[in-house]
Amino acid sequence: MSIAATTDKSLLRTAVSDIAEVMAARPDRGTVASYIPELATVDPARFGLCVVDADGEVFMGGDAEVPFSIQSISKVFTLTLALGMVGDRLWKRVGREPSGSAFNSIVQLEFEKGVPRNPFINAGAIATTDVILSGHKPKEALGEILRFMQFLADDQTIHIDREVAASEQRTGFRNAALANYMKSFGIIENPVEYTLGVYFHHCALAMSCRQLAMAGRFLAYKGRNPSTGLFVVKPERARRINSLMMMCGHYDGSGEFAYRVGLPGKSGVGGGILAIVPGQASIAVWSPGLDASGNSHLGRIALEALATRMGWSVFG
Amino acid sequence: MSIAATTDKSLLRTAVSDIAEVMAARPDRGTVASYIPELATVDPARFGLCVVDADGEVFMGGDAEVPFSIQSISKVFTLTLALGMVGDRLWKRVGREPSGSAFNSIVQLEFEKGVPRNPFINAGAIATTDVILSGHKPKEALGEILRFMQFLADDQTIHIDREVAASEQRTGFRNAALANYMKSFGIIENPVEYTLGVYFHHCALAMSCRQLAMAGRFLAYKGRNPSTGLFVVKPERARRINSLMMMCGHYDGSGEFAYRVGLPGKSGVGGGILAIVPGQASIAVWSPGLDASGNSHLGRIALEALATRMGWSVFG
Amino acid sequence: MSIAATTDKSLLRTAVSDIAEVMAARPDRGTVASYIPELATVDPARFGLCVVDADGEVFMGGDAEVPFSIQSISKVFTLTLALGMVGDRLWKRVGREPSGSAFNSIVQLEFEKGVPRNPFINAGAIATTDVILSGHKPKEALGEILRFMQFLADDQTIHIDREVAASEQRTGFRNAALANYMKSFGIIENPVEYTLGVYFHHCALAMSCRQLAMAGRFLAYKGRNPSTGLFVVKPERARRINSLMMMCGHYDGSGEFAYRVGLPGKSGVGGGILAIVPGQASIAVWSPGLDASGNSHLGRIALEALATRMGWSVFG
Amino acid sequence: MSIAATTDKSLLRTAVSDIAEVMAARPDRGTVASYIPELATVDPARFGLCVVDADGEVFMGGDAEVPFSIQSISKVFTLTLALGMVGDRLWKRVGREPSGSAFNSIVQLEFEKGVPRNPFINAGAIATTDVILSGHKPKEALGEILRFMQFLADDQTIHIDREVAASEQRTGFRNAALANYMKSFGIIENPVEYTLGVYFHHCALAMSCRQLAMAGRFLAYKGRNPSTGLFVVKPERARRINSLMMMCGHYDGSGEFAYRVGLPGKSGVGGGILAIVPGQASIAVWSPGLDASGNSHLGRIALEALATRMGWSVFG
Repeated sequence: MSIAATTDKSLLRTAVSDIAEVMAARPDRGTVASYIPELATVDPARFGLCVVDADGEVFMGGDAEVPFSIQSISKVFTLTLALGMVGDRLWKRVGREPSGSAFNSIVQLEFEKGVPRNPFINAGAIATTDVILSGHKPKEALGEILRFMQFLADDQTIHIDREVAASEQRTGFRNAALANYMKSFGIIENPVEYTLGVYFHHCALAMSCRQLAMAGRFLAYKGRNPSTGLFVVKPERARRINSLMMMCGHYDGSGEFAYRVGLPGKSGVGGGILAIVPGQASIAVWSPGLDASGNSHLGRIALEALATRMGWSVFG
Repeated sequence: MSIAATTDKSLLRTAVSDIAEVMAARPDRGTVASYIPELATVDPARFGLCVVDADGEVFMGGDAEVPFSIQSISKVFTLTLALGMVGDRLWKRVGREPSGSAFNSIVQLEFEKGVPRNPFINAGAIATTDVILSGHKPKEALGEILRFMQFLADDQTIHIDREVAASEQRTGFRNAALANYMKSFGIIENPVEYTLGVYFHHCALAMSCRQLAMAGRFLAYKGRNPSTGLFVVKPERARRINSLMMMCGHYDGSGEFAYRVGLPGKSGVGGGILAIVPGQASIAVWSPGLDASGNSHLGRIALEALATRMGWSVFG
Repeated sequence: MSIAATTDKSLLRTAVSDIAEVMAARPDRGTVASYIPELATVDPARFGLCVVDADGEVFMGGDAEVPFSIQSISKVFTLTLALGMVGDRLWKRVGREPSGSAFNSIVQLEFEKGVPRNPFINAGAIATTDVILSGHKPKEALGEILRFMQFLADDQTIHIDREVAASEQRTGFRNAALANYMKSFGIIENPVEYTLGVYFHHCALAMSCRQLAMAGRFLAYKGRNPSTGLFVVKPERARRINSLMMMCGHYDGSGEFAYRVGLPGKSGVGGGILAIVPGQASIAVWSPGLDASGNSHLGRIALEALATRMGWSVFG
Repeated sequence: MSIAATTDKSLLRTAVSDIAEVMAARPDRGTVASYIPELATVDPARFGLCVVDADGEVFMGGDAEVPFSIQSISKVFTLTLALGMVGDRLWKRVGREPSGSAFNSIVQLEFEKGVPRNPFINAGAIATTDVILSGHKPKEALGEILRFMQFLADDQTIHIDREVAASEQRTGFRNAALANYMKSFGIIENPVEYTLGVYFHHCALAMSCRQLAMAGRFLAYKGRNPSTGLFVVKPERARRINSLMMMCGHYDGSGEFAYRVGLPGKSGVGGGILAIVPGQASIAVWSPGLDASGNSHLGRIALEALATRMGWSVFG
């Protein structure tokens, strides 16, 4: 949709700063993910918010430059990479529908012959990772993902937290179950441990809100990276990735996020959320405590407040 | 989102007329719903398209003034009415998440103690109808729904096809199963046969594309009915109903619709689809043949073509 | 299996009387079913036990002659009647496998196109009742069931508790959901309300342990009713009904019952259990309090004690 | 149940020989399991039958002394071993109810927090193997299982087919999914690859019908090994293992087997079935072709014929 509206920068600046202040003070902070020790040690008092607008101007509040584990938010970028490699052939291995179940559910895989419902549940992201891996060594595939993130965010300091990755590899039995299950149906082509290795490592990308919002810009600007002026993906693909974020970006809380925030977004159990305002802004928020659906509790509330103040719902 | 863009009327006029012509000629027409005899007799060659833009100008192509059975599209309007009656208390009885299953699935109800996942699957729409019925006689409730449709579309000729309703009542055992199941969990308050009676009748509303697109205008214009200038619902509510249409409007084909068309929409097994371009247009399309998910086959393709030509995705 | 062993009558007499005494005194009595008021008013302190041996001698303890609502135990007898009417054609409409789920689950029906897994879950018993009803009026079908019970138990005083039946009819929405669901797949042939009417009424049969143990004799004696010496069913059919009781007689507690008691049995939510010792005895026990699977808590414990003392497992 | 009946040896001899002859000639042979190459090469024309009666006399027909891959039949023996090691504590990790689903289904695990329904579905047998492994090296645990089989069958030549085991290890992704899934819930204590290694190897035991029927004797004779006169397990435990075989021994075909054959039994995808006639006989049959539930097609038919001729149902 061609959106001519320009962002009111002073309104945005005040909103970002107000919201960061209010959120930092709120007592209800959700529950920090504890399934791996490295995530559990994060301070629940942290809150960061960063908006990059259509001119590339950056608005930050709170801990917007503190790196955190982006976890499932990486799925947006591995999807982009995989589509760049195999195009629509990806959809033979992964669906495009909301799952109606938890992020790590295996039930749907049994009913649908090993094909994950969408690329943003764990199974779908593992299958997508497997596509990126094909023809490469795990180290090469991982290098490609990392360089892609650095390129998108225009920041060479972005790195992978190897302790988080190693910890997930030691304890990620449920993801191993998903990968082996898909392997039994031929959805995974590489050795399961290779695919899982790459998957655990890209989930362990450490990025700040600023870096994440920068990396998401191409989704807000019809596929273009405004730093370079070049297209990362075609406009149609950016639009479609946004649609997948809207439909499936928050697991079984996707409906709630659409209802309250009204923007395409993708959350991670590290407490981050990337949200896109088509034509206007790329937003990253971080608050480590999660709600019952595994999405950042204050992150979602902050995005709702920001979207309301800025009039940023895609739904009118 | 404040969308200042104005619609290029001549572009739209040509698009509507081109698409109607192309669709009328296509040989692939999907499968006309046969579960009740009245629907099965509809001519699969029919195709209608109507767009009402922000100025209230009407653009029509094909059979845009031929009435058809709107079926599940009525769920958008009964949701609006029920929210007007009980507000957010509705959400104690109905969820807001995509279901990940077929429109008439009962499995989810068992796993979630009789609470339907959203107001657009059959179970959720029956529960919503039950809310409208409460405190009224079935006839009164139905009268209210009918008058609401006539008011929204600004057209007193809209009526209910009683043969379709009667036919559904005779054969709607699966809906009776859903209603009785919810009743056993206390989600349905009125006698099951009353609630089902009202449900079957509002699904049997006969409307043309023109009437339907007119009725949908308040969703495109932040809750206002442009005929009267008055608010049907507040802007926030219009936005939220749009979000529900996006997430759940096409049953287990909602992800596909979002991916291809990128607009909030609601389909019915009569072959109609209502789609909303926030800030710009209300669209109704009709082609009786359905795809595997129970959504209008050519209707979806026509909307994809129209959205592409007009640049009307909410996703950028 | 040809079992020459004769029952030690004095051992049995002592066992029945001991067990009745111990059970009457136990403080743990389970939870009386409360889903209809009539069942909820039953005194949880009740306990009855009756064994009829191969010679037709009757051994009783506790409240063995107090009538109670046999509820699902009637399913054994309606299965017998339906097999007598249509033979193996019954198995086109009902399966013969354990369900792995609760007695009133509807999930399995959706996955298996409306065909209930076995004749002892509610859905399967409703489908079986529908077979008995076919070609008759509800009243006639019910009369046939009642006369069959009176004939088997050799007791004309057996009757249906119409208050219990009426109460179930008013509140049996979950059973109505099951019946309507099956009707939508063509598994139910008669009007749903007729089939349910007959179903609710035969579940409301009021019988004492003595009457029930008498009625079950044909299953212990290779199909013969020892009062008359005539075959009620052929030996093979008696054997097969016993196998179904073993596999499916206690809903999702069938494995537990087989493991602990080791006899074919069928429970009802009224707190009764009918158990069969092939070649040796027909047993009925009654204690109104239920366990988590909906089976009589003390009834099962009493049967385990009796089977152990008498060496009555079919498993060696 | 004390069964005084003695077996008519000449009747049995004729039955075994007749049935072997008839089965060898039948054209309908089911489908040989093909999921690992080693199993797929077995000649579908093979048929073997062996009965060991209460006196220890052996009756054989067809290929009764040709070794085949016992596959899941080993689960009966690993269950026996695990119960010997940890007793009823096993039931904290494994249930005792029929599953109502396929042998390798993972759905039930998700709904029941990683606890497999019974020790005879794959997940349950993997959990049982994990119990045997605890405190040992995989090689030691496997040695113990092998020696137990040799002891029970009184035959030191029984061995494990390492090619079959290796092949399953290479391709057993679905079992790896089950094991990892249970590991994520803490049901598996040892490293997944160790537990799976032992599991795949004991499934690869190669035994003839004769060896298998010999090994099963303790289940027919109240827990005693008649070769030594000593108890392998207490009578109660033998009875309970038999009950589990009856309820769960044929996956989602257990009801059918109980209905037709009426004996506790356990099948394997290698085409073998072990069946127990409490007090009278231990039976092994082998025909490589399987039915839709994954159980030996002719094996079941042969057992039905044998049980009918000998009057050997436990159900009367």
